This record gives sequence, structure tokens and C-alpha cells, in this order.
Amino acid sequence: MTQPLLNDPAVVAEIREIFERYEVALVEKDVAVLDASFWDSPHTVRYGMNENGYGFAEIHAHRVARPPGPGTKERRIRLEILTVGRDLATVNLEFKVRGRDLIGRQSQTWVRFPDVGWKVISAHVSTMAATPIL
Amino acid sequence: MTQPLLNDPAVVAEIREIFERYEVALVEKDVAVLDASFWDSPHTVRYGMNENGYGFAEIHAHRVARPPGPGTKERRIRLEILTVGRDLATVNLEFKVRGRDLIGRQSQTWVRFPDVGWKVISAHVSTMAATPIL
Repeated sequence: MTQPLLNDPAVVAEIREIFERYEVALVEKDVAVLDASFWDSPHTVRYGMNENGYGFAEIHAHRVARPPGPGTKERRIRLEILTVGRDLATVNLEFKVRGRDLIGRQSQTWVRFPDVGWKVISAHVSTMAATPIL
Repeated sequence: MTQPLLNDPAVVAEIREIFERYEVALVEKDVAVLDASFWDSPHTVRYGMNENGYGFAEIHAHRVARPPGPGTKERRIRLEILTVGRDLATVNLEFKVRGRDLIGRQSQTWVRFPDVGWKVISAHVSTMAATPIL
């Protein structure tokens, strides 16, 4: 086995484009784009700020239920994209929570499927604890 | 391209074993096992309850600095393991936070590297917001 290619510029560019499209869709509450970004599978998991979604149907229901508005991201602090080979990527974004003295974190694992292309199979959004939880 | 194999029992069994070893190491603050579980790379990200770790060195420093003790998990609520092909897995664990009326969530993305075997490349641990953050 050879080592997987890390951060191939072409693959990183693909992920950056679909990630930015996803972020716009969050702000615009564009459920079609949000749905198209996630793997349509019972195995997909999305831990949101306020809910835990198991499977595409629950995740979709959370999208629909979310109030419209600009969302929780006031500004970005750090964005890390990692691609491993041509078919796997992780995206981690640290951000300032809108109107709150809190740090938010967003993590996604993207897989490129042969039939449907890049999809998020696992996602997690949270705030860092304001006071230590040990 | 063929569809990747999902949840092959042999691969799931491998992940389950290394995940459980990791969980024991958290409780025992076994830094050697914790370190061995994560990819030794500047690209590795671990968002913890109380800190954001970018790169193996920072993640290691957070391990060392953590107080000893049984950690935040009082009991498991739901564990989801997904394997995609033979070299990629996600683990998502929902749990009751010890001594607090809070739901915890732990997400890991594992990659099997040809030289070093299974390693976490991205991890995120958090509590679900007790009051909605929108």
C-alpha cells in the first residue's frame, strides 16, 4: 500500500467549493442544498448545536424546523480542510458565535461516493464549554 | 468505481476494539494509548469539551494537562459506528454527562494508514446546548 495523498490541491479546491456552498445554504436556509450536501442514508449522523440527528430523515427534519436567519456564525476564526486520497475529507471550522461570548466549532467528514459524489457522512456543531466540564 | 463496502463486520469489529481501548484510556488517563490512537500529524484536529487542539502536539498537551479522573461520561445513550470500505470509519457516541443534566456527544473519524494503521484524524467532543443557540 502506498501512503494516501494528503491535501492534493485539486481535491482541496473541490471541498472548499462545496463547503462554501453549504455555508451559504445555511445562512439562506436553502434546504435543497443542505439536503444535497449530506449522505442520504440511515447511517448519516449530524450532531447540531441543539439536537442530535441520526439518519438523513431526522437531519432533514431539523433543517426544516430551524428558524430562518443568519445562523450562529458571526465570524470565522480558523478553517482547516484536510483531504486524504481523492475520496475523503474533513473540514473543521472554529468560529465566534453570533452575539454571544462563545466559541463555536463545526466538523464534517466528507466522502466521495461513486454514484452521488461528495457527501457529508458525519457532522458535529457545538460551542466550547464556557466553564470547564471535566 | 464500485460502491464502497459499508459496515463490513470485520472492519466494524476492528473499530469497536480500538474505540473501546481508547475509552478505557480516557478513564485511566493513559496518555500513551491516547496518543497512539491519534494521527501524529499537524493536520489532526481535536475539538474537546474545553479546548481546541490543532495538530498532534497540541492534542498531546491537552491530554497531559487534563486532570485525572473518570471523565465526563456517566453512561452511554447511543453508539454509532460506520465503516466505509476497509480504511475509513466514523464513531459517534451520545452520552449522559457525569453529574450534570447535559447530553454529551463524541465524534471521531478514523483512517487506516498503510504504515501506522488506524488513527483518528479528526475528533469533536461537546455538550448539546442546554438552551437553544440559534
